[in-house]
Amino acid sequence: MSAPANFNGQTPKIDPANAAMLLIDHQSGLFQTVKDMPMTELRANATTLAKLATLAKIPVITTASVPQGPNGPLIPEIHESAPHAQYVARKGEINAWDNPEFVAAVKATGKKQLIIAGTITSVCMAFPSIAAVHDGYQVFAVIDASGTYSKMAQEITLARVVQAGVVPMDTAAVCAEVQQTWHRSDAEQFAGAYSAVFPHYQLLIESYLKAQAVVTNNEQLDSQRG
Amino acid sequence: MSAPANFNGQTPKIDPANAAMLLIDHQSGLFQTVKDMPMTELRANATTLAKLATLAKIPVITTASVPQGPNGPLIPEIHESAPHAQYVARKGEINAWDNPEFVAAVKATGKKQLIIAGTITSVCMAFPSIAAVHDGYQVFAVIDASGTYSKMAQEITLARVVQAGVVPMDTAAVCAEVQQTWHRSDAEQFAGAYSAVFPHYQLLIESYLKAQAVVTNNEQLDSQRG
Amino acid sequence: MSAPANFNGQTPKIDPANAAMLLIDHQSGLFQTVKDMPMTELRANATTLAKLATLAKIPVITTASVPQGPNGPLIPEIHESAPHAQYVARKGEINAWDNPEFVAAVKATGKKQLIIAGTITSVCMAFPSIAAVHDGYQVFAVIDASGTYSKMAQEITLARVVQAGVVPMDTAAVCAEVQQTWHRSDAEQFAGAYSAVFPHYQLLIESYLKAQAVVTNNEQLDSQRG
Amino acid sequence: MSAPANFNGQTPKIDPANAAMLLIDHQSGLFQTVKDMPMTELRANATTLAKLATLAKIPVITTASVPQGPNGPLIPEIHESAPHAQYVARKGEINAWDNPEFVAAVKATGKKQLIIAGTITSVCMAFPSIAAVHDGYQVFAVIDASGTYSKMAQEITLARVVQAGVVPMDTAAVCAEVQQTWHRSDAEQFAGAYSAVFPHYQLLIESYLKAQAVVTNNEQLDSQRG
Amino acid sequence: MSAPANFNGQTPKIDPANAAMLLIDHQSGLFQTVKDMPMTELRANATTLAKLATLAKIPVITTASVPQGPNGPLIPEIHESAPHAQYVARKGEINAWDNPEFVAAVKATGKKQLIIAGTITSVCMAFPSIAAVHDGYQVFAVIDASGTYSKMAQEITLARVVQAGVVPMDTAAVCAEVQQTWHRSDAEQFAGAYSAVFPHYQLLIESYLKAQAVVTNNEQLDSQRG
Amino acid sequence: MSAPANFNGQTPKIDPANAAMLLIDHQSGLFQTVKDMPMTELRANATTLAKLATLAKIPVITTASVPQGPNGPLIPEIHESAPHAQYVARKGEINAWDNPEFVAAVKATGKKQLIIAGTITSVCMAFPSIAAVHDGYQVFAVIDASGTYSKMAQEITLARVVQAGVVPMDTAAVCAEVQQTWHRSDAEQFAGAYSAVFPHYQLLIESYLKAQAVVTNNEQLDSQRG
Amino acid sequence: MSAPANFNGQTPKIDPANAAMLLIDHQSGLFQTVKDMPMTELRANATTLAKLATLAKIPVITTASVPQGPNGPLIPEIHESAPHAQYVARKGEINAWDNPEFVAAVKATGKKQLIIAGTITSVCMAFPSIAAVHDGYQVFAVIDASGTYSKMAQEITLARVVQAGVVPMDTAAVCAEVQQTWHRSDAEQFAGAYSAVFPHYQLLIESYLKAQAVVTNNEQLDSQRG
Amino acid sequence: MSAPANFNGQTPKIDPANAAMLLIDHQSGLFQTVKDMPMTELRANATTLAKLATLAKIPVITTASVPQGPNGPLIPEIHESAPHAQYVARKGEINAWDNPEFVAAVKATGKKQLIIAGTITSVCMAFPSIAAVHDGYQVFAVIDASGTYSKMAQEITLARVVQAGVVPMDTAAVCAEVQQTWHRSDAEQFAGAYSAVFPHYQLLIESYLKAQAVVTNNEQLDSQRG
Repeated sequence: MSAPANFNGQTPKIDPANAAMLLIDHQSGLFQTVKDMPMTELRANATTLAKLATLAKIPVITTASVPQGPNGPLIPEIHESAPHAQYVARKGEINAWDNPEFVAAVKATGKKQLIIAGTITSVCMAFPSIAAVHDGYQVFAVIDASGTYSKMAQEITLARVVQAGVVPMDTAAVCAEVQQTWHRSDAEQFAGAYSAVFPHYQLLIESYLKAQAVVTNNEQLDSQRG
Repeated sequence: MSAPANFNGQTPKIDPANAAMLLIDHQSGLFQTVKDMPMTELRANATTLAKLATLAKIPVITTASVPQGPNGPLIPEIHESAPHAQYVARKGEINAWDNPEFVAAVKATGKKQLIIAGTITSVCMAFPSIAAVHDGYQVFAVIDASGTYSKMAQEITLARVVQAGVVPMDTAAVCAEVQQTWHRSDAEQFAGAYSAVFPHYQLLIESYLKAQAVVTNNEQLDSQRG
Repeated sequence: MSAPANFNGQTPKIDPANAAMLLIDHQSGLFQTVKDMPMTELRANATTLAKLATLAKIPVITTASVPQGPNGPLIPEIHESAPHAQYVARKGEINAWDNPEFVAAVKATGKKQLIIAGTITSVCMAFPSIAAVHDGYQVFAVIDASGTYSKMAQEITLARVVQAGVVPMDTAAVCAEVQQTWHRSDAEQFAGAYSAVFPHYQLLIESYLKAQAVVTNNEQLDSQRG
Repeated sequence: MSAPANFNGQTPKIDPANAAMLLIDHQSGLFQTVKDMPMTELRANATTLAKLATLAKIPVITTASVPQGPNGPLIPEIHESAPHAQYVARKGEINAWDNPEFVAAVKATGKKQLIIAGTITSVCMAFPSIAAVHDGYQVFAVIDASGTYSKMAQEITLARVVQAGVVPMDTAAVCAEVQQTWHRSDAEQFAGAYSAVFPHYQLLIESYLKAQAVVTNNEQLDSQRG
Repeated sequence: MSAPANFNGQTPKIDPANAAMLLIDHQSGLFQTVKDMPMTELRANATTLAKLATLAKIPVITTASVPQGPNGPLIPEIHESAPHAQYVARKGEINAWDNPEFVAAVKATGKKQLIIAGTITSVCMAFPSIAAVHDGYQVFAVIDASGTYSKMAQEITLARVVQAGVVPMDTAAVCAEVQQTWHRSDAEQFAGAYSAVFPHYQLLIESYLKAQAVVTNNEQLDSQRG
Repeated sequence: MSAPANFNGQTPKIDPANAAMLLIDHQSGLFQTVKDMPMTELRANATTLAKLATLAKIPVITTASVPQGPNGPLIPEIHESAPHAQYVARKGEINAWDNPEFVAAVKATGKKQLIIAGTITSVCMAFPSIAAVHDGYQVFAVIDASGTYSKMAQEITLARVVQAGVVPMDTAAVCAEVQQTWHRSDAEQFAGAYSAVFPHYQLLIESYLKAQAVVTNNEQLDSQRG
Repeated sequence: MSAPANFNGQTPKIDPANAAMLLIDHQSGLFQTVKDMPMTELRANATTLAKLATLAKIPVITTASVPQGPNGPLIPEIHESAPHAQYVARKGEINAWDNPEFVAAVKATGKKQLIIAGTITSVCMAFPSIAAVHDGYQVFAVIDASGTYSKMAQEITLARVVQAGVVPMDTAAVCAEVQQTWHRSDAEQFAGAYSAVFPHYQLLIESYLKAQAVVTNNEQLDSQRG
Repeated sequence: MSAPANFNGQTPKIDPANAAMLLIDHQSGLFQTVKDMPMTELRANATTLAKLATLAKIPVITTASVPQGPNGPLIPEIHESAPHAQYVARKGEINAWDNPEFVAAVKATGKKQLIIAGTITSVCMAFPSIAAVHDGYQVFAVIDASGTYSKMAQEITLARVVQAGVVPMDTAAVCAEVQQTWHRSDAEQFAGAYSAVFPHYQLLIESYLKAQAVVTNNEQLDSQRG
C-alpha cells in the first residue's frame, strides 16, 4: 500500500473543503528534545498551520501528552492562532488514535482528509497517521511541522509513513495547496503566513516597497549627493 | 501508483522526440529563499535545462508567479538560453496546471513526456507534476533544477512525487538521457552544458589541452630549466 | 512487495504480545567502525531496546559474529539489560538467518513479528530482515539501534529494506509502540528508557522537579535576596 | 597591538556608562547575502542590541549604505527598538568612519567605548572598528550581530579585528556585560532580550510556569485520570 | 514496479553463482567531479568490488566513456584487481546498454543477476541499471561504489533506481552477501577487502594482535617499569 | 596581554598543587540552550572535571545563577562527583566575580591558578576568567566543559579570552596535565575519567580484555568450529 | 610579532596607491585539490581580485608552479581580467619569494604593501607572505582567494600567517578597502565585481529594477488581472 | 609570547638542516578515538611526515604511551617509512618531555628546530611542544598529522599552542618548506608524498599521462570511431 492510500484514483492532494487538521503534542518540554531541525523553524511552521486553518476555515483538533508533567504545556501560539481549535485531553494514551474521544472528535468533523503534524514525529505524528490510513482516511503528514530527536529519526519516519500510504508534505506545500490562488481577497493574509516559513520573504517585501518608493518619491541615491 | 506512472511497461526514461519541458517560477525573488542547495548551482542547472532544450529542439513552456510583486522577474537566462520558449502568464493560480492556458500550451506540443523544474520545489514543481500524472503524462521532475527553503523540504517533496508516480531526475541525468551519444556533430555543445553542472569539468578540459600542448610543442618543464 | 510485507490488511505496527526481538552483532570492535551516527547514541539505543524487551517481556535472541576475533565481544549492556535473552553462537555465517540454530530459536518463540537491530546495518541487520520477510514474518528494522560505516550506507540500506517490505522504525517509536500508554504501573520505568534516547528529557525532569520544589518549599529567588 | 587596544591596564570589558553603540548597514538587501549564520538569528541579534541600548540608555548611532539602491532599507526593527537612535546618512563612503558627520556624531556622545555591529561583517563592521581603534577608542565588535557571505569570511574577519586590538563579543555577552545583575527592577525586560538570542529560553519559561501551576492548582496528571 | 524487479518471489539477494559485475566509467577525470562522498572512499570501494569479483570468480565487464578525452583513463586498480575483467570499448554511447557489444558481453556470461557500479551515478550507473531491468535482469546497484556531483544528485538517483525495481546496495553488503560465511579457506582474503571499506578495521586487527602478543610474550606495561 | 597572563616566564601549564577549580552555572535549564556541542558531551566533560578535582584533591567552588528560576538547578553530578566542593550562592550577579563571597572563597583556597568552566561560555565562563586575570591569577578556561548557544559564539569567546591572556584548554588536556603519569597507584581511576571524554576508549578496553582472554583461555574462533 | 607587521603605528589597512597584488599558482590542476571552499567560489574570488586590480590600477604579478606538469596552466581568467599583469616564470622554487626574478619584479613596483593570494594556501600563499613580512612589506593575505586541501589546513594557515604579522582579509574586504566610496564614476564596475563574490547581489539588482519598472510602467499584478 | 618563540628576528620557517622530527603516540587504539578529521587522513599525514624525514635526512624520534595496554601499538607505517627513527620507551609519563631519555635523545640530535606531531593533539602533541618552547627550541606543531576527539578540541589546542609561541603547520606546508624546490634530483619522491596528502593529485597525474599518450600515440577518440 505504498501508493497514496484511500485515494481510489483521485489526485493525492489536499481538498480544503474536505480536510481537518490534527495538531498533536506541540509542547514546550518536548520541543527541547527536537534536533532534526531548528526548533524555531518547527515552532514557526506549527504556528503557521494553525493560522492557515483559521484562514481557510479548516477544523482543528489539538491534544497534548500529559501536559502536567515534564512534557510541558502546549505552546500557546497553537490556540492563539486557531481560536476555533478543539482541545481533546487524553488519558495517557501515547497514540492519540487510541483515545476514543479524539477519534470521535475527528469523525465529528465529517472530513475525509486529515492534515497531521505532531511532536515527536515518529510517535505523535506517525502513530495516528498510520492508524487513520487503516480507518480509511486520506492522510497528509506535515513532516517539518513535526519534530524529533535526530535527522536520522526523521528520515526513518518519512520512509515508514510513505510505505504505509501516507502523503508526505512540507509546511509550504500545505499552505499553497490550501490557498490555491493569489486571486482572492485574503491573499495578503496568506502572504503573511509564508514569511514565517520563508523568512527571507519578509526581506523581499521590505526591499520591494523601498525600491518602488524611491521611484514614486523621486529619491536621490546617497552616493549621488554632495 | 508508486511505480513510474503511465509507462505501461516501457522503460521509464526520456524520449527526446516525445518530451516537452516546463520551467516554472524561476524568479529572482523566490531564488533568495532557496536553502536546499547553493543558489548558484540552482541557477546554473535551470539555465542548463533551457540550453539543453534548445540544443535538442525540445519545446519549452515557461511561466512566473506574479512577477510584478516581490517574487521578482524570471531570471533572464531562461529565455536567453531558450529563445523558442513560450511564456504563459497566469492569473494568480499557484499550481500552473490550474491555469487553462498553461495546460492548453502543454497539450499543443503534442508530447506525452514532461520534464518539469520549478521553484519552490514542493509547490511550483510538485503540484503540476502530480496533476500531469493524473492527466496521463509521463513526468520527469528535475529536483536539482528546482529549489526550496530547506534540505528537509526537498527530501519530503522527493518522497511525495515519487509516491505519486513521478520519475525523479538530476540535471546531469536529464542532459545525458537527451544527448544519448558523444558520436554526434553537436557533441561539443553538449559538453559545454556539463561544465555548468560539473564545474570541475572545465578544469579537466584546461588541464587536458595544456598537457597535450606540452607534448605537441615540446615544452620544457620550468623545474628543468636553468 | 514494497508495501509492508506479510501484514495482509493489518495496520503495520508492533503488537507487543506477538513480537520477538533480535539483537545481532553489537560488538565492541564493530562499534569502532560505526560512522553514520555517534557511537554513544547507538550504544544507548541498543541498550534501550534490551531494557524495553525486559519491561515488556518480549523474548530476545542475541548472537555475535566471531567474537573471539577483532570484532570483539558483545557490549555487556545487552545481556545485563535483558537477562532473559538467549545467546546463539554461530559458526561463521555472516547472515544470522543462515544459522539453523538461530532460526530455530526464533521459531521457538512462536511470535510472528520480529524487531531487528544489528551492526553493521547493511549486513547484520539487513540480511536476516530480508530473509525473515521471505519466511513470512512481519519485520520491524530499528535503523538507529543499528550502525554502519557511513550515512550514505545507512540511507542505502533503509531504501533496500523498505523495498523488501520491512517496516523501518527508530528506537523511540519502538519504545512507544510497545508501551502504548502512560496509564500503567510501570510507566516510570518506561520514562527512564526515554532519557537514554532523548538526553534532554533528563534535563526536563530535573528542571520540572526543581520548579515545583520552589513552590512547595516557598523558596526565594537568589536575585531577590539581599 | 593584538592585546585589547587602548585599555591601558583596565579589564577589557564593557562599561555601560561609558559606551556608545554603532549599528551599521543592517539593510534588507544586504541581509539576503548573509551566509555565515541563519539570517533570522542575525536579525534577532541586531534587534536585541537595539533593545539593549534602549534599556541601558546607551546612545545608538545608525547609518546605511545607499539605502535607495539594491542594498535596501534598514530593517525597521532597529529604529523601532531604539527610538532614541540617531541616523546619519552617508554620501557613499563604504567605511562609515570616512564620513565626517558619522565620526562627529560618535564623538558627540562623549563615550570612550564603542559597541559595533555591521553587515557585511568584514567591511561595514571591520573597517570602522579598526579605524576607531586607531583614534583611541576601546572597541567591542559584535560578530554575531553582524553578517557576511561565508563562515570562512567571518572567521577571517574575527582574526583581523582581534589582531588589530578589537575585543570580539557575541550578542549574549554584550547583553550580560551591560546588564550586570538580575537584582534590578528591569530584570524581566532583560530576560525578554535573551529569549531572542536563546530561543530555547522561552520554552524554559513556559515549562517552568506550568510546572509551578500544577503544584499551585493541584492539577492531576492526565495519565492518572480515569 | 517499485518492488525488486524480476525476482518472482525469490528473496532479493545476490547469488554469487548467478551474478556478473559491471564496472562502468571509473575514470580519473570523472573522479575529479565526484562530490557526494570522499573520492578516496569511492576509489577504495570500486577497487574492493573488483577484488571481490576475483575472489568469488564473478565475471567482470568494464568499459569507459571516451577515455582519450578529458574523462581520462580508467583508474588502474580496476583491472589490476580483476585481471579476468573484460574491457568493452564503446563508440560514444553514454548509456553502456546502448552499445551492442557491451550487452552481448553481458549476455555471454549467462548470468541473470547484475551487480552494477558506475561514475557518474545518475548516468553511467543508473541508465544501464534501468535498461537491464527492462531486459529481465535482477539488478543490484552499488551506490557507494559509484560517484556523482552532489549528495542531492545521489539521493535523487537512489530514488529513481529503486522506483525502477533496482535493488540498492552498499559496498560492504555486496562483499558480505557474496562471501556468505567466515568458515571458508579464503576468509582472510575477504577480511582484507573489508579494511578498505572500513578503515578502522585495520586498527582493530593491529590492536588485537598486540593485545594477544602482550599475553603470549608476557610483556610488562611500560607504566609498571622502573 | 595576549601572551598567557601572569606567568612571568613560567611554562603556561597547570600545576595541580597550586590550582583551584571553578564550576559555574552548569544548570539543567541553561543546558537546554547549549548548541555549540552535543549537550551529552558537555555534561560528561563537566562531570569529568568534578571527578578529576576529587582524585587530585583540587579545591572546587561551585555557584549557580538564580537556580530557583527557569535556569534550573545545578546538574546533580557536579556535587556528587566532587563532594568536597563548596557552593557559593550569589545574589543575582551575572559575573560570579562580582559576588564578594565568591571571590573570597577563591582567595581562601590560597591557589594562584584557576581552572574555570561555566555555562553560558561567553558569560558565565568568560567574565570571571577575564576578571581573575586582572586580579593576577593564572587562568585556564575549559572551553568544552562550558557550553553556549552557537558554534560561532564559542569561537568568538575563545578569541576573546585568549586575547585577554587566558590559557584555553580542552577537558582531556586538563585531565592529563593534572594526572602527569600513568605510573601512579590511582591510574585506573584516571583511566575511568577518560572514558567519559573519549567514549571509544571504553570499546578499546572491552576489546583488549577479550582479545587477551581468548589467548589465556585458549578459546576457539566460532568460525573454526564445526 | 603577532601585531600587524611593519605598520609602525599606521592603521593596518590597504592603501590602493601603495599596493601591489601577487596572484600565485592559481592553476587548473591544483584547483582540483581544493577542498576548503567550493572551487567555483575560489575561482570567482581570484578572478575578482584580478579585475579589481585593473579597475584600481594596482600592479599585478603572477607566477605558476611548473605549469607544464600536472599542476596545469594558470586559469585563463587571471590574465584576461588583468591584462596589465606581469607573469614571472620560476625555475621550480616552491616559495615564489625564493625566485630572484619574482622578488625583483615586486620590488620594481615600488609599492610597500602586498595583497597576496595563492593556491595551495599554506604553501603558495603563506610562504611568500611570511618572507615578505621579513623583508619589511605590509602584507595582506586574501584567504578566500586562496585554496587548500581541507578546512582544517585553511584554519591552521590563517593562524600561522596572523602569528607572523600578516593581515588576513577576505575578498570582499579587499574590494571595498580599495574602492573606498560609491561616489566615484566607476562605481558600477565595482558593483559588478561584488556580484561574483556575493551571487545573491545579482538577484537583488534584478528584483530592484523590476520593482521600479512596475511603478514606472504602471504594470498590473497578474493576480489582479481577470 | 604569542609571536613565534625563540626566533629572534629570523623568519619563522623550517630549516631542514637544523630540524628534528618528533612523532608521538600514533597508536592503533588512540586512533579509534580521533574525531576531528578522518582517521585515514591522519594516518596518511603522519606516514607522510615519516617519509619526508627519510627523504630529507631529518632525524626522527618516536615514542608511545603504554603500547602494551588499550592504547595499542604504534601504527607500523611510522617506522617502516622512517627506518632511521629512534624509538624511546617512556615509563608512563604522559608528557613525553617529562621523560629524561626522550629529552636527551632530542638534545643529542643537536638541532634547534622541532617538528612535532602527536595523538592526542591537546596532550601528546601540545604538552611537549609547550615544554620545548620553554627550553628554547623553535617548535613547529603539525596539527593535521595529530588527531583528537573533536573538532572543537583541535581548535582549542591550536589557540593554546599559538598563544605559547609554537608555529602551527599543516602537513603539506611541512613537506613543501622542507623540499624547497622541484629542481632537485629526488623531486619525484617528494611528488609521491603529496599524493597521500592530496589524493586528487594522483588523479591529476593519471589524466596528465593519458592526455599526453593520446597525442604521442595518435590515439583516436572512441566517439570518433565507427
